[in-house]
Amino acid sequence: MSVAVKDQAGAIENYIADVTRRAERVSREIAAANSETKNQALLYIAEQILASSTTLKQHNARDLEEGRKRGLDDALLDRLELNDARIQGMADGLQQVISLPDPVGETTAFATRPSGIKVGKMRVPIGVILIIYESRPNVTADAAALCIKSGNVTILRGGSEAIHSNHAISDCIHAGLDKSGLSKDIVQVINTPDRQAVKSLLQADAHIDIVIPRGGKGLVERVIQESRIPLLKHLDGVCHVYIQEDADVNMAIDIAVNAKSQRFGVCNAMETLLINGSIAKQVLPSLADKYESKGVELRGCPQTCSILPNIARASEQDWYQEYLGPILSIRIVEGLSQAMDHIQKYGSHHTDTIVTSNDAIAQKFLREVDSSSVMVNASTRFADGFEYGLGAEIGISTDKLHARGPVGLEGLTTQKFIVLGDGNIRE
Amino acid sequence: MSVAVKDQAGAIENYIADVTRRAERVSREIAAANSETKNQALLYIAEQILASSTTLKQHNARDLEEGRKRGLDDALLDRLELNDARIQGMADGLQQVISLPDPVGETTAFATRPSGIKVGKMRVPIGVILIIYESRPNVTADAAALCIKSGNVTILRGGSEAIHSNHAISDCIHAGLDKSGLSKDIVQVINTPDRQAVKSLLQADAHIDIVIPRGGKGLVERVIQESRIPLLKHLDGVCHVYIQEDADVNMAIDIAVNAKSQRFGVCNAMETLLINGSIAKQVLPSLADKYESKGVELRGCPQTCSILPNIARASEQDWYQEYLGPILSIRIVEGLSQAMDHIQKYGSHHTDTIVTSNDAIAQKFLREVDSSSVMVNASTRFADGFEYGLGAEIGISTDKLHARGPVGLEGLTTQKFIVLGDGNIRE
Repeated sequence: MSVAVKDQAGAIENYIADVTRRAERVSREIAAANSETKNQALLYIAEQILASSTTLKQHNARDLEEGRKRGLDDALLDRLELNDARIQGMADGLQQVISLPDPVGETTAFATRPSGIKVGKMRVPIGVILIIYESRPNVTADAAALCIKSGNVTILRGGSEAIHSNHAISDCIHAGLDKSGLSKDIVQVINTPDRQAVKSLLQADAHIDIVIPRGGKGLVERVIQESRIPLLKHLDGVCHVYIQEDADVNMAIDIAVNAKSQRFGVCNAMETLLINGSIAKQVLPSLADKYESKGVELRGCPQTCSILPNIARASEQDWYQEYLGPILSIRIVEGLSQAMDHIQKYGSHHTDTIVTSNDAIAQKFLREVDSSSVMVNASTRFADGFEYGLGAEIGISTDKLHARGPVGLEGLTTQKFIVLGDGNIRE
Repeated sequence: MSVAVKDQAGAIENYIADVTRRAERVSREIAAANSETKNQALLYIAEQILASSTTLKQHNARDLEEGRKRGLDDALLDRLELNDARIQGMADGLQQVISLPDPVGETTAFATRPSGIKVGKMRVPIGVILIIYESRPNVTADAAALCIKSGNVTILRGGSEAIHSNHAISDCIHAGLDKSGLSKDIVQVINTPDRQAVKSLLQADAHIDIVIPRGGKGLVERVIQESRIPLLKHLDGVCHVYIQEDADVNMAIDIAVNAKSQRFGVCNAMETLLINGSIAKQVLPSLADKYESKGVELRGCPQTCSILPNIARASEQDWYQEYLGPILSIRIVEGLSQAMDHIQKYGSHHTDTIVTSNDAIAQKFLREVDSSSVMVNASTRFADGFEYGLGAEIGISTDKLHARGPVGLEGLTTQKFIVLGDGNIRE
């Protein structure tokens, strides 16, 4: 390591140490802020974003220009772009968070114990949240809003390709916080694209309570490898629809088509269709026609291929695959038990649906399938914070602890025990 | 590494791979078991433990003998010992878990969304739980009981000093599971004292959902370093009592004495007393007399030492210290804000109490102190699963995510989203 590089690494370490120290220092301030103050800050930020539209587009233009020079592909450049509609979208998102109830300070019922103490729980912020994300600069405003509302301090580390846009948005956030009398350090945006900054942040487990990586699988896996901080993460979305023999055929076809092809490239789209052998001949041919019209490529197990002779054979690898595109693998199973075995072995604990008219079968599927969302007679595409009524989501967790599935404001909080006494001591 | 040692390491790796594979294979079985079956198993285990009293004491005698040869100290040998009272205690513990309500399958209220889907949450087991613990063999029965009741598979790794006792208890657990028709693999006790086994277990993040280290700080820190699995852990218990100027003097003295000296060496004992300067002269002299009669050594800030001239000065290090013994540090503060600053800087987010007659002050303390238990006018010693009505606890968590404070059956479960539709698709 040359002296210059070493100095650079040292300077970044010092910078990150300063960021985390500042974050910790203001954590009690935002945790104690009342709903009115937090909503006021969000409103000022929204106003500032709309008022800064020209500046935001200028900074964004620099990112786009540099991106084009670096050869970013069109899809990435599209995600990176801030136009008037997207700037309005950020302001609307802030308004939506304002309208959500504040979870902080909510208490459960208190129980009086034989000792005389009263015991309950209070919902409180987590503390300092690190969010690492890619390309789309609107995440800067969305994530900051959810963290402010839930009483948390945020450290935001966006992608290097969006650094100018993110800083322009950061300026709006700081102006809004300041106008409402809150410290700017409640939201800090990392100012260097250097990878060393992420490394240092992920080691700061003494100061950061949770890290949320938002982005592709590569990003998430890198964070898992390097982090000493608890994670809230989304890894794979290998979602299944299982059609039971007693399913309404039209309903089964509608759900299977919607789950796969309402939108491609989303984590809650179906990747594998499981179908009971006794209904397969009734369902698969007309389903295959619909998929063909949507441009979906099918891959099947041997039995499926005997019903649909024109499709390719699915390999063992296909059952594990999150295609994130217009491909679907289909397997014929003997019944519920084999369907659940398949989901446990190949699935990713994200979202799984059964189509059935038998309530006992539905209950067994609901209880025994170990996924963050388990559904009966509904499309997997509903697994979404907005559809669930959470208002907005920071992401969808495929972890089992703390928060599973779409994570909204409540997932950014935790509960502590509250004990009320009148001089009680333990005998 | 010699060939023999390498072979040994390889054999242990294979053994652990087999253990985790077996654990995963039975996770759906115990998750789906109904309350009656689980309670029946716990009853059979309790009966088997009582019926095996002679065998348990024989195996325990081997551990005690080997422990004496290895020079274990008296306190450790005492914790290791199984006598009739402790064997009865294990059986009673199992009965107590039987009497607790089963959290698995509980659902929240369902909300109907504009799309027509009904969304709620269901409480479900976590999956496979690894528990690593030291010396006291009764943990084997207690931890297994809580995990069975909450529908989880357990892998238990006790201390090498208790290996014969733990295996004799494991035989009772297996007999009880078997008699109730459940697989023995639902509870597996690791059969080797080799450290490599722990290493391999802590790398098995693909098969184990959570690890709970129960033991001294050394054990917990070792697990933090080596684990790639999410942890539920108890680190430090630097608990505070803050006496506000308006506190009832007698109540303050009672609580301060109880919090420090009702029992030494427990995590929820007070380690630092904070007291408002304007009430210090009224409280400290008589409090010091009481502590003297209990054999508690006091260490004070300069102001405290001017009121209690015979005590030693507390060093900066004292404020961070979990004494786990008859030592208390005392600091005089200007008011609530300085007390909360002290708790944030030096505390461990475990349990903190305020003694005050002012409701607004109490509310501010309750809301803003970021600890797993925050109390008003009650001794810190109440921070305990039994006192809180959880029935039994697997431990006290000082983590912020998932479960904070005493962790009972609910903390061994998680919630998934349930969606009920009647053919709903996303537009």
